[in-house]
Order: sequence, then C-alpha cells, then structure tokens
Amino acid sequence: MRVAILGVGLIGGSIGLAARGRAEAQVCGYDPDERVRAKALELGAIDTQAADVASAVEAAEVVFVAAPVGALVEAARDALHHAGPDCVVTDVGSTKRLLAGVGADARFVGGHPLAGAETAGVEHARPDLFDGATWYLTPAKGSTTGVLYERLHGLLRRLGANPTAIDAETHDRLMACISHLPHVLANLLASQAAGLLAAEGRNRLPAVGPSFRDAIRVAGANSAIWTDIYMSNRDALTDAIDQLSERLHEARSAIAGGQAPAVRAWNDRARTDRDALLAAEVGGGAVQELRASVPNRPGVVAEIALALGQAGVNILDMALSPSEDNRQGVVALWIGEQEVEHAEQLIAGLGFPVARA
Amino acid sequence: MRVAILGVGLIGGSIGLAARGRAEAQVCGYDPDERVRAKALELGAIDTQAADVASAVEAAEVVFVAAPVGALVEAARDALHHAGPDCVVTDVGSTKRLLAGVGADARFVGGHPLAGAETAGVEHARPDLFDGATWYLTPAKGSTTGVLYERLHGLLRRLGANPTAIDAETHDRLMACISHLPHVLANLLASQAAGLLAAEGRNRLPAVGPSFRDAIRVAGANSAIWTDIYMSNRDALTDAIDQLSERLHEARSAIAGGQAPAVRAWNDRARTDRDALLAAEVGGGAVQELRASVPNRPGVVAEIALALGQAGVNILDMALSPSEDNRQGVVALWIGEQEVEHAEQLIAGLGFPVARA
Repeated sequence: MRVAILGVGLIGGSIGLAARGRAEAQVCGYDPDERVRAKALELGAIDTQAADVASAVEAAEVVFVAAPVGALVEAARDALHHAGPDCVVTDVGSTKRLLAGVGADARFVGGHPLAGAETAGVEHARPDLFDGATWYLTPAKGSTTGVLYERLHGLLRRLGANPTAIDAETHDRLMACISHLPHVLANLLASQAAGLLAAEGRNRLPAVGPSFRDAIRVAGANSAIWTDIYMSNRDALTDAIDQLSERLHEARSAIAGGQAPAVRAWNDRARTDRDALLAAEVGGGAVQELRASVPNRPGVVAEIALALGQAGVNILDMALSPSEDNRQGVVALWIGEQEVEHAEQLIAGLGFPVARA
Repeated sequence: MRVAILGVGLIGGSIGLAARGRAEAQVCGYDPDERVRAKALELGAIDTQAADVASAVEAAEVVFVAAPVGALVEAARDALHHAGPDCVVTDVGSTKRLLAGVGADARFVGGHPLAGAETAGVEHARPDLFDGATWYLTPAKGSTTGVLYERLHGLLRRLGANPTAIDAETHDRLMACISHLPHVLANLLASQAAGLLAAEGRNRLPAVGPSFRDAIRVAGANSAIWTDIYMSNRDALTDAIDQLSERLHEARSAIAGGQAPAVRAWNDRARTDRDALLAAEVGGGAVQELRASVPNRPGVVAEIALALGQAGVNILDMALSPSEDNRQGVVALWIGEQEVEHAEQLIAGLGFPVARA
C-alpha cells in the first residue's frame, strides 16, 4: 500500500513508523519544514520525501493530513486537489466539524486518533503510539465511498488503533467535554495555585501531591496547537464550560452550606460515573463474522460504521465484496462475540439483510 | 523508640511498617475495629496490639492519631489525655485548623503527610509510602515543646518523609487549592462526561484518552473520608471555588469571543505556572550544619521551623542541646548547602544568634 503523510511531526511520524513496520506500506512524506522531513527520513518514519504536496500524494492510496488544526482545512483541500480518484484522504485534527466542507468530497474521511504525548516533534515519534488507541473516523453518511472507508479502517487496525465511526458534531461535543474542558481546568488550577503561593509570600514552591501533579499535567499544553483547538471548537467548549459552571455552583452551595449528606451523595454519584467511564473495555475473546448485503451507493458503509460506533460496538475488521453487476455488495464485519448479536440487530435495524457467516 | 498508632489503616499501617523497619521502633497499635488491628499485627505493621487507647499510648514517646477527619479531634484529645508528659502526639488529618484547640497542648503537633493511595485499608500499607513525600507539621509558635518537635521531625525523616513546618491557616488554604478543589473538579468532570454520553444515547462509553483518565482519577474518592474533608475545610474550599469560578468566567469570555491572542497568552501563563509548580525539588548536594542559640521557652523551635518552612527551606535534620542551667540551648539544623545561607539569614532575622558549625 502506498501511503502519503503531509506533516511528519509526532503524529505523522508515528503513522509513518507504524505503516512501514506493521503494514508494510511504502510511505512518502512531505513537511513544509525541510529539516523536519529530512529528520523523518533519517529516523525511518518515511521511505521517501517529497518536495511538495502534489508529488507526495500523486501515487498514494491513503493520504494522512497531519497539519496543525489552524492549517488543516487548506491542507486537506490541497491534498484532495492533487490526489487520485481512488485515494482516501484523512486528517488527524482534534476538532472535526471544521472539515465538514471538505467532507463533501466522497474521498475524504475525517479522523482523530486519541493519542499523543506531551512531547511534540518527529524525534519523539514511535511505531506503538496508537496501540489500543481509539481512532475516531467521521465518514459522511451520504457520501463517503465504502471501499475507501474500508481501506482506511483496515490500515488503522494494522497501525494498532481501534477505528470508531462517529459523527462530527458528536465528536466535537465529546472532545469539548473530555479533552478541551479538562485542559482549560488544568490551566486554571495551575495559575490559581501559583497565584496563591505568590500571595502567601512563599519563596519556593512546596512539594505537591501526586493528585495535583495529575490535575495540572496538561496545563499550558503547546500554545500553538491548543490555541487552534480552543478556537476551532469554541462553541462546543463554551457550552461545556457553561455546564461545568452550573455544576460547580451547585457543589459550592452544598459545601458552603455544610450539607454533608448532599455532598456525600454528590461524591457517590461522581464515583459511579467515574467507574463507568473508566470501566475496562471488552477485551480479547473470540471474533465472529457478520455479512450484510448492501446497495452499492455512497455512504452505506459509513452509515453502518456510525451506527455501530454510536452503540460502542467495535469493528475489528471489515471487507467489501461488490456483486458482479456492481449494484450491490456484501460488507463483511468482524465483531467480538460478546457484541455480535447487538451488531446484527443494529444492521438489521438499518434495513440491510444480515447474517453470521 | 516507642511509637503508638491509633487507627491502623493504610496510613497508620504504613507508618507502622516504616517505623519498625527503618526506625527500629517498637510499635503498639490500636484500632476501634478489632479485625483491622489483628490484620495489622499479622502484616507486621505493629509489634503489639492494644485493646484501648489508654494502654496503646501509656508508654509511648510518639503517638500518631490516624483516625478519620470526622473523629480526629476526639481521638487526639483522648490520646493527649492518656499520654505521658514527655510524649509527642500528632495526627495525619488533611485539614489542620480543626485541631487548633487541641494544639494548645504543648505536646501536640498537627501533621499531614502528602501521601496516600487510591486504595484504603491496612492490606495496602507499605513501608515506602512516605518516601520523599512532604509531611506538613503545624507546630504552634507559642507553645509546642522544642524537644518533642525535634523527636517527631527526626522520626518522620527516618520514615522517608520531608517534614515541613507550616501554619495551620496556610496549610488549609493550600490544601483547598491543590487538593480539595482538584477533587471537586474531578467529580464535576466525571459526572458531566457521563451525563453527556447518556444524553447522546450511547449504549457504551467510548474509550477515553489518557489525559481524561488523569483528570478524573480522583473523582468520587472515598465518600466517608472526603465528605469529612470537604466539610472540615469548607470555608477555604469555598474561597478556592469562588476564585476558580472567576478565572473560568474570564477564560470563557476569551474563548467564546474568539480572542486567539488572549487565549494564547492565557495558555502561556498556565505553562509558566505549571512548570514552576512542577519544577524539580532541590535534590542531593552537600549538607551543612547551622547552630542557633535560642532561649529555652516553648515554641521557639516551632518558630524557626515555620520560618524555614514558609521560605521553602528543607530541614534535613535537627538536634537540640539545652544548656546546663536549662535556660537556653542550641538548635543544630542540617540544611542543604544551596539553602544554608538563606536559612542563616532567616534565623538571624528572628533575633537568634546563628553560625555555621
């Protein structure tokens, strides 16, 4: 498989290392910074370097646009402009509605791996960065080409990730709550603590406990990246902040009023919610194959992937087999046996004949 | 040294293991729950078990009151009632003004180790729980007996901790900001994320990134313990919440208004604050001895310890030598060489003659 990566920093470089090492792909890399692409080549993250986007993507079957969020839309359009008709183009940006316009192109599938590190730069790239990580994909129900979605899904599996389809709106609301808001709070906590210590006239900072270290670990994350993220998702983030403010106000009332039973109940609920959120993923176990018959029209595979993604059903692998006349086809899906019945119901619910193989 | 521990759960049990293993202390343990003290004995956290507080503390030189915050004042009073005149009594509670009344007794020094674990119970006790951990001590300037403070300080060093003096007010404000507030926010985040997922109609929770895991790790911490903590420090916590609300409101304005430069500057400040907070402690290096002449009156050692603690100067070890007529004495302090000059100035500033040995 021929893969092009536009932007070979931490994420792009890690994709390259994994694609070369695990998926035996031929990887061509481009980066606007000449030194970065030379470094990527030196580190084995790419097989060849390209001098521009056009030559990077010309022969590619899969293109990863790993540009900063602020440059993403332009870079994705550029990639689609130069890519061939049978090439899937994806990105790795943290907000996804941004690319809704780009998504009208049937070759585009938005993407977002839940992986990263505190350290940016291709020199920190590693082939196992995506191991076990959820990799959100935002195919468009009405347009995304099934065969291209399948190709991308399969490649991401080989990179070690769990691709999960989600619609862009939901993705951005989810990220506002579970990623962007926690970053905002980490920033506030760090600055509040530093301010308090200064106000106390302490010459040196006291040691802090491990839980505070966790709480502020992501504070002040890379300003270039995070300013873009905050700006690109600002409506969803503002909603999330408003909801948090309201919850904070309620908690404050119970605490300030010395309402021990209410505080206890509030804390108990948080425990339940936390445990549910952190519950171990369904792991291991046998895998079953489901075969669904679907009409050969754009967006059908996206529709199935989104329905399963919303229900939390993991698609371990998929394969498409078009019929002779190319008017319909079969989607084969490999699903963990604990989820296979649920998956079957969901697909049947979409109106497609489905059976276990 | 004879040590008594009242309450042999995770913290009390770990004190016992460390005191026996590292300080060669004789440890007597009491716990209101008979099974817990039997378990502590079985695990080697104590040498002997006592059937009541009186017999636990009767021969002790150091008593640790490791009761829950809600029962702490009563337990500390009880310990002081039964302890001998030459016994130092301390506690391990997370808020310290609570014990201000108890602190009028010259034998009492409030304490709070910044250590713990997500798992409570003596079966999780370990001798290295306090290694390198700050252990706040809140001696009273006007009353705490120097020789008892020194004994406690020395024992805590042998347990592996860094004892640091701080006044109770400052301690509680600090904890509100760096411990209690982060716990409140973790609770809110966990419940908000769980609520969002439910509202999205997702049957199963999606995988969450590592930063969200960090952000909610302490959510819904032990309700019995934390309700007590929130209640006992509610004024300081309410202040911390109010300040956070204000900061959140400002951040929201910049984000919602799309003010990229302001958001970027805000994020940069958080980075500076975070880096300062997490800066590596001054480690290693040579140690120097300072000798200060002090009048033999209660609270003098506390005064010195508090001044050094406020300035962030670590007292690695201390020793008291009373003069023949017992009217004055010498406090020897071992300080890291990078801080020794600062320590000397601080002690001189308190009016005590001081010199390097």
